[in-house]
Amino acid sequence: MQTSEASLDPQTNPLQLLADFVADDLQKTKELMDQKMASHVDLIPQLAGHIIKAGGKYLRAMLTLATAKAFGYTGHRHVELGACIEFIHNATLLHDDVIDESLRRRGQPSANAKWGDKASILVGDFLFSRSFELMVGDGSMEILAILSRTASLLIEGEVQQLTWMNNTEMTSEIYLSIIRAKTARLFSASCEIGGVVASCSTTQRQALADYGINLGLAFQLVDDILDYVADSHTLGKNIGDDFREGKMTLPVIFAYEQSQGEERAFWQRTIGELQQTEQDFEQALTYLHRHDVFSKTRQLAQEFVAKAQLALEPLTENTKYSLFHDIVAFSLDRCR
Amino acid sequence: MQTSEASLDPQTNPLQLLADFVADDLQKTKELMDQKMASHVDLIPQLAGHIIKAGGKYLRAMLTLATAKAFGYTGHRHVELGACIEFIHNATLLHDDVIDESLRRRGQPSANAKWGDKASILVGDFLFSRSFELMVGDGSMEILAILSRTASLLIEGEVQQLTWMNNTEMTSEIYLSIIRAKTARLFSASCEIGGVVASCSTTQRQALADYGINLGLAFQLVDDILDYVADSHTLGKNIGDDFREGKMTLPVIFAYEQSQGEERAFWQRTIGELQQTEQDFEQALTYLHRHDVFSKTRQLAQEFVAKAQLALEPLTENTKYSLFHDIVAFSLDRCR
Repeated sequence: MQTSEASLDPQTNPLQLLADFVADDLQKTKELMDQKMASHVDLIPQLAGHIIKAGGKYLRAMLTLATAKAFGYTGHRHVELGACIEFIHNATLLHDDVIDESLRRRGQPSANAKWGDKASILVGDFLFSRSFELMVGDGSMEILAILSRTASLLIEGEVQQLTWMNNTEMTSEIYLSIIRAKTARLFSASCEIGGVVASCSTTQRQALADYGINLGLAFQLVDDILDYVADSHTLGKNIGDDFREGKMTLPVIFAYEQSQGEERAFWQRTIGELQQTEQDFEQALTYLHRHDVFSKTRQLAQEFVAKAQLALEPLTENTKYSLFHDIVAFSLDRCR
Repeated sequence: MQTSEASLDPQTNPLQLLADFVADDLQKTKELMDQKMASHVDLIPQLAGHIIKAGGKYLRAMLTLATAKAFGYTGHRHVELGACIEFIHNATLLHDDVIDESLRRRGQPSANAKWGDKASILVGDFLFSRSFELMVGDGSMEILAILSRTASLLIEGEVQQLTWMNNTEMTSEIYLSIIRAKTARLFSASCEIGGVVASCSTTQRQALADYGINLGLAFQLVDDILDYVADSHTLGKNIGDDFREGKMTLPVIFAYEQSQGEERAFWQRTIGELQQTEQDFEQALTYLHRHDVFSKTRQLAQEFVAKAQLALEPLTENTKYSLFHDIVAFSLDRCR
């Protein structure tokens, strides 16, 4: 298994095709984000600019821009909402990095490593509140309802994950409900609000929302795999972070379920009690491969890919149907 | 100088009269807050309930309830918005306590002392996002605009205060701009949105907003005094917290401006470098009293009280004019 995103043919890499499709609008989104993070308090644009510009893929904003454009929208609202979605996403990243005590993010020192936890907490709050100003500026109650609900569910998922930290009793069902809330819901909202600004029908909007949630689930499961098997350059953060933080992600849940004796004691010590030595990550990889958990996780991700593609069926007439169909495959191609 | 809130005659204490005026609606607000902090993730209502129920005065919610009721509003929206305002306020308290490393709040262990920083950060985020759901549920774009703007300014003020932490070069002008953003704006919004739901005229709304901002400024300055001179029981947190955290509040700004030689070195060491010994707080009090800074701070607070009362002039016809007029005096009566 290796990461291969970089080696994909740029002519056919669906993520690149997505980026090409929304290039002009994404440029406007980035400019708007620059404007909206401005403040007479210099620390705000410094810290926010650091995390936003350090190589994020703007995947969520691109989904909003692409869904709106694919359904014929030609105004400016999707640009504002793309910025809004990215502000929410980056606010959660700032707080996640404080909570996980992460030192690196997107190949750079994390904001908390550079400016301290206090600044990261408050600038995260700022991006979050600014995202609400952007939504309010948009003026659609329908979109405000989607995004305010999504934000609450996202944070509820984060709190739930925190309560299961270092707890080997986590099940795959609970884990999937957590990542549905904390990751997949924002993907879903990103896609749905593009449909709302483009005045899609209820059926079309529901298709976009279902597509987004399954894309988000597949995306998170692949991320969980990559945290064990990617090279740090591709990952942009340190490999093994999930393990070192004692996060029960799906690969470990699968391995723990099948473990006995010495191996079970290993997981209880390293994840449950967070007592780790230098060699433990290698040992963890050995156990994980022994139970073939990466294939199993990838297989589950594949099921969500299939569901995402199935969700698109009402949209086969759309000229960009194939693009959306192929984007989901990219999430799997990142690890193969 | 002593705190005297508890010793005021309950028959004439304007804060008590305010509480009596909105008692039924405040009860509904508390019940709604209970409902809205519910979650399948138990930690959320536990932690949020801890901070909210630990003796908060609900002053901001009472201002929304009272302004709406005073102008004849009889519906339920002010209850929802009162809960919304208190959620914003408590979210900032949770994050403030993490940032200030405070161990006590309202006479109890702080949430971060009890559940850790990580839980406090995320449950603060949750209350903040839930407050937006409440606003969206209310459905008024006008109120969403006021509150989303207020939230951004509040956080901008918090970041600005962080950047001035341990910096003896802080001026009273900068300090007043910080507390205007981080404290007074929320008071102002609390009053104004009560006027909005009661369909007040533009003049009336502006009067309420101006009243709130000056009330908030007076309130914060009195808090700054109390942090040095109150007894811990009245304060609900440890006396001297601002000093120990190296916060340049107005009393210290005034003293530092007039300090020379040994005294200046004292402030630079204790506030600027945060090198403090057990005896330093007593020494700080000696310097502060020597320059009569508490009287000067109180005098400035008195000016904001006068401005708040002046702002009320367009509302003299209102049956509750005297109540609002007298509430501002209470903020000064807390330290006399």
